[in-house]
Parts: sequence; C-alpha cells; structure tokens
Amino acid sequence: MRTRAAVAIEAGKPLEIMDVNLEGPKAGEVLVEIKATGICHTDEFTLSGADPEGLFPAILGHEGAGVVLEVGEGVTSLKPGDHVIPLYTPECRQCEYCLNPKTNLCQAIRTTQGQGLMPDGTTRFSMLDGTPILHYMGCSTFANHTVLPEIALAKVNPDAPFDKICYIGCGVTTGIGAVINTAKVEIGSRAIVFGLGGIGLNVIQGLRLAGADQIVGVDLNDSKSQMARRFGMTDFVNPNDVQGDLVAHLVELTGGGADYTFDATGNVNVMRAALESAHKGWGESVIIGVAPAGAEISTRPFQLVTGRVWRGTAFGGARGRTDVPKIVDWYMDGKIEIDPMITHTLSLDEINTGFDLMHRGESIRSVVVY
Amino acid sequence: MRTRAAVAIEAGKPLEIMDVNLEGPKAGEVLVEIKATGICHTDEFTLSGADPEGLFPAILGHEGAGVVLEVGEGVTSLKPGDHVIPLYTPECRQCEYCLNPKTNLCQAIRTTQGQGLMPDGTTRFSMLDGTPILHYMGCSTFANHTVLPEIALAKVNPDAPFDKICYIGCGVTTGIGAVINTAKVEIGSRAIVFGLGGIGLNVIQGLRLAGADQIVGVDLNDSKSQMARRFGMTDFVNPNDVQGDLVAHLVELTGGGADYTFDATGNVNVMRAALESAHKGWGESVIIGVAPAGAEISTRPFQLVTGRVWRGTAFGGARGRTDVPKIVDWYMDGKIEIDPMITHTLSLDEINTGFDLMHRGESIRSVVVY
Repeated sequence: MRTRAAVAIEAGKPLEIMDVNLEGPKAGEVLVEIKATGICHTDEFTLSGADPEGLFPAILGHEGAGVVLEVGEGVTSLKPGDHVIPLYTPECRQCEYCLNPKTNLCQAIRTTQGQGLMPDGTTRFSMLDGTPILHYMGCSTFANHTVLPEIALAKVNPDAPFDKICYIGCGVTTGIGAVINTAKVEIGSRAIVFGLGGIGLNVIQGLRLAGADQIVGVDLNDSKSQMARRFGMTDFVNPNDVQGDLVAHLVELTGGGADYTFDATGNVNVMRAALESAHKGWGESVIIGVAPAGAEISTRPFQLVTGRVWRGTAFGGARGRTDVPKIVDWYMDGKIEIDPMITHTLSLDEINTGFDLMHRGESIRSVVVY
Repeated sequence: MRTRAAVAIEAGKPLEIMDVNLEGPKAGEVLVEIKATGICHTDEFTLSGADPEGLFPAILGHEGAGVVLEVGEGVTSLKPGDHVIPLYTPECRQCEYCLNPKTNLCQAIRTTQGQGLMPDGTTRFSMLDGTPILHYMGCSTFANHTVLPEIALAKVNPDAPFDKICYIGCGVTTGIGAVINTAKVEIGSRAIVFGLGGIGLNVIQGLRLAGADQIVGVDLNDSKSQMARRFGMTDFVNPNDVQGDLVAHLVELTGGGADYTFDATGNVNVMRAALESAHKGWGESVIIGVAPAGAEISTRPFQLVTGRVWRGTAFGGARGRTDVPKIVDWYMDGKIEIDPMITHTLSLDEINTGFDLMHRGESIRSVVVY
C-alpha cells in the first residue's frame, strides 16, 4: 500500500512530506493506522545528527496512537479495530529481561530495532523509486500507516482520544514511570525535579500521584513555573536566583536533602547536582534525560558511601503492554492530566513547525493529527 | 586512671607506646578494657596523613573487643563484666537516621566524634604532662582501656574469643554487611568482587552465606586466589592476564554481567569497572573502598539509564548494636569463618610491625592482643 509520511532524508535537514510504499504485516506483525503522534526531543536528537546511532533515510516518530487495520500470521492478542499505542520498548513476556521483575528492557527485537529494521531483518517502508526507508525505534509514527511487531503494541481503551494519549507512548509514561516504577516514591516523600519541560512536568504529576509532600522544581526559565505548579510543584528554584551553591540551597530547602531527585535535562552537570542534593543516608537520584554522546557523570564516591543511590530509567521502567493501558485508564479517570501539556496541534504537512516550536522553547508538546 | 596506649603523635610517624591518663566515664559513657584490636587500612589512612580529616595527637584503632569495667550515670543497657565490641557507627535508636529503615548512619554523636571528642565536647585521654589526646572514630582501641558512649557499644556473646571477634568491629561486618544489608543479594546471584584483601574476603564469604551461584574474585596478585577460594570464590581473574578489555571479559564470564559487583579497592577506576561489569537492566554495584581525597568516579549516564544501579556502603549498612551481636553468633555457630584471616597476632609493643606487614601486603589482618 501507499501512505503519507514525513521522511528524514538526512541528518540536519527538515523532514520531507511524501507518499511512500508500505508492505503489509508479516508473521507476528501488525499494520496500524496512526491517528496522532507527538514530536519528542529524541526525534530531534536523531534528526539533528547528534545521535551517533542515527540512520537515514528513516521515518522518525515514536509517540503515537492509532487503530489496528490488519494482523499478520500468528498474531493472537490484537485484531482489526483495536486501539493501540506503539511501544519503542516492547514486552515479549518471554525473554530473560521480561522474566526478571527488576527491569523493563525487553531484548526480544533489540538488535534489528537498533538497525531500523523489523525482526526479520528487513524494512516495510520504501520510497516510490524503491529506495528502502528505515524504521525508527521500531515505531515510525511520522507515517500515517506503519507496521510493528505484535509485542510492541499496547491495546488501550477505545474511548480515549488519540491526540492526547499518543503522549503516553513516551513522555507521560517516562515521567510518571520514573516516579512509580523506578524510584518507587513513598507517600510523604520530598523530591526535586530538575528541568520542567515535558518530562519534568510528568515527573511532577507522578510525584503528586504518589503522595509526595514536597515537590521542588528547578529550571532556568521562570516561565516554566506556572504550569509546573498546576501539576503539583510546591516550590520553584531558578538557579540564577540562588546566592551561592545550588546544592546547598536545595539541601536546606528540603530539610537535609530530598528523598528522591530526578534529572530531566540530559545535562551531566545537572545530573551531579541532582545526586548531591539527595538526602544523606537514603536519597535516591534518577537520571531520565539523555546526555550528549560521550558526556560523563562524575561525583566523589563519598556521596554514595554515605548512602545516596544513583539510578537511571528508560521508558519510566514501564512494561508497555502491561502498564501503558493502565496509564490510559488513569487519564480517562482524571487521575492524571495530559491536555494542558499538548500546547500545539498540527497537520502532518506542518510537522517541521513542531520542531521549530521545540527549538524556540515555545511548546511543551506538539502533536501531529493525521 | 592510667593505661597503656599506642599514640599517633603526628602524621607519617610510627605510633609511640606510652602510658596515658584516662578519665572515668561520664553520664552515658562506659569504661571498657580492650582485650584485642585489629589494625585496619583506615587507621593506616589516617596515620599516613592522607586523611584530610585526620587529627593529632590521637589514639587510633577502631576494630576492638573487650569487657565493660565501669558504667557512667544513666547507662542502662550495659553493666561491668559485659563483653562488648566498640562501634564507630553508633546506634542511638532515636535519631532521624536510626528511625529510617533505609540507613545505618546514626547521627547522634557525629559532630563530636569527627572532632576526636566524646559527646560532651571533651576528651578522656591525656599525656602524662597533661596534653590532651584525641579519640579516633569514637573508639581508640589502640589503648588498653578506653571510654565510649553507651550507644557505641554492641553487647556480644561472652564465650566468643576477643582476638577473633574484634575483626567484626570493622572488616567482617563491612564485607558481609555490604552483601546482606546493602546489596541484599538473593540466592542464585552472580557476583564480582574487586580486591581480595580483608574486606574482599568478607564480601566473598557474605556472598557464600547469601547463596550466590557464581563468585568472581578480581585481584592483581595471584597469591590472593587460594584464600579467596577457601571463602567461596568460584572464579579468579587477574586483570594482567586478560587479553583486551577487563569489563568485556567479566561480562562474558558472568553471562551478560554480574547481578552484583563490589569494589573493595578504593581505586576510582576499579569502581567504574565494577559498575560497568554489572548486568544491564538490573545489575547493582556497591562501593565499599575509601578513595583518596578528591578522587572522583565517572561513567556514561547510559550505564545507569540502561538499568545499572550505583550504591555505596559504610560499615556494611549494619546497625551495630543490633547486627554485630548476630554476626558474633554466626561466627560461634560456624556460619562464617574468621580465624584464617587473622594472619598475625602481636603485642601492643609490636603494633608498628602490624603496619609494616600491611604495607608489604603480607598480612590479611594483624591483631594486637593486650
């Protein structure tokens, strides 16, 4: 079949909107009509050329929602008409990782996914002249239709609006999951969130959901404060306004350091500040942000010997097929909010505008609706 | 009263054996006759002058066992004749830290202990000419008699031999506790221990006690291998014998990385290797060793984002008054071994020989018996 897609021809260039060829689903695969997709910093990271593992030409996008149109041989858990969210971290429920309760990093299709291919080692996309186009993070939601493995699709509540729940495919789950699955924040905790962008806001609402008593937000941009308070932030700190050492200020503000701190900036210096503003004896710091290639985190080992714990999280520690449908239900039940974070809705033809809005810091999330 | 002690007059000089004055216990304090004391690398670290917080003149030693001679006003949990192990990490059971199940770092007397003083801000030791001598780590077990706060003494089985259980005052508890309290190693785990000195051997026997399936020991000295096997090591790796990258070798040897890794070297490069040889998705690395002042650990944040956890431990996460008596019982019941690790027994007059043996790498543990 043919479908309409925004194609990343090469690094550093705008996406090109064009018709492409899409082969139907092979065994274990599913054809999905994408109804909406968010534009995430990770797409930008790859498109910019900064991602050392980025491959081109490719169809980017990994934060989508849509409807199953057709299932390949052997697919049993999905049928045409099901509403689904694509998962860049699949959940096969059979590999060593899926069977270990400590991780969500299913490895079933990792190698081919990293090569921009379906599990059989081929791509379903091609240009009209036959040039192959690679998949991206196993999702490629910047195409109106895409093919994914069955294990990379979460079946969700069909009443949920695509243009909102697509955000659960990455940002919402990453932020809330970092709190619930990775840090396992307890009621009454004190927490600090560094970076109040799309991920940071979701960390904040995750903390509110978990019953945190104090939720400190840290950002260089005062204008981020208002939205963050709406999602549960109790204290705002702009490092530019702090006299002296930021870490010392945060330790004092939280009565000795926070029980949990989260980096949602991707800046390795901020990651260090996040660790060191965690409470002696028991404070845990969670790295969510993706650092530039080659960047390293550092600290004195004394910080760990005196009881701090340094962790990271990918996709919020969520097992997508199991956890994403629950988060959709939380949204439908009003337990979490998404609507105020979707600041811009665009057509596919306007997708490059979404990247511009991100560059200018004007959007929290832009969503493309097909 | 007068007692005999090995006094650290200044950094970098041998200890001087002399008679010193010792005041009796004040309220909340206990006079203890030390019967035996180990010589630990931390004593050496301070005596050498490398410890930026080292103070002189002081009576070092923090790994002792002895008998209560006299109790001060208000002491209720100990009486003359009780056998005790001094605790450089006390357990007041009342402070914010003691009441938090995630930490053992009781802060009740931290400030004065760090200054070489008893909780009232004074010292009990002085030279015969009246010059004050400081306490060390709140213990000062290089004196035949010493005074400690009640909260810094663990009451132990009176049948246990002082010249063996003194080692439980630091090395044994630190190593075994890192496994049991900090890492919480599960039956069937795979583990790597970096550094097969006195701490590393106790990590190994802790892993055996915890039911680990694979216990890899890493040391630059082949001669450490034999003793480590006796305590449970299943595989030995000398980095000098590895072709190529050590981390890659260890990851392969452990089938994808270890579930738990432990640094018992104090070398920040080894700490990094320990983290990076932990299993993707769930491997945890525990820093036990004390690094040189100013040294920093580093890694790429990707190591944490893909599921590794970086921790540290102090005194093996043990709450001394609660846990040390249990470890003494484990020794008496044959669950753990100590005797083969006590390679040298010395008199107080020979204490500098103990430091020489440590420098030359000839001892695992030298114990001074009074």
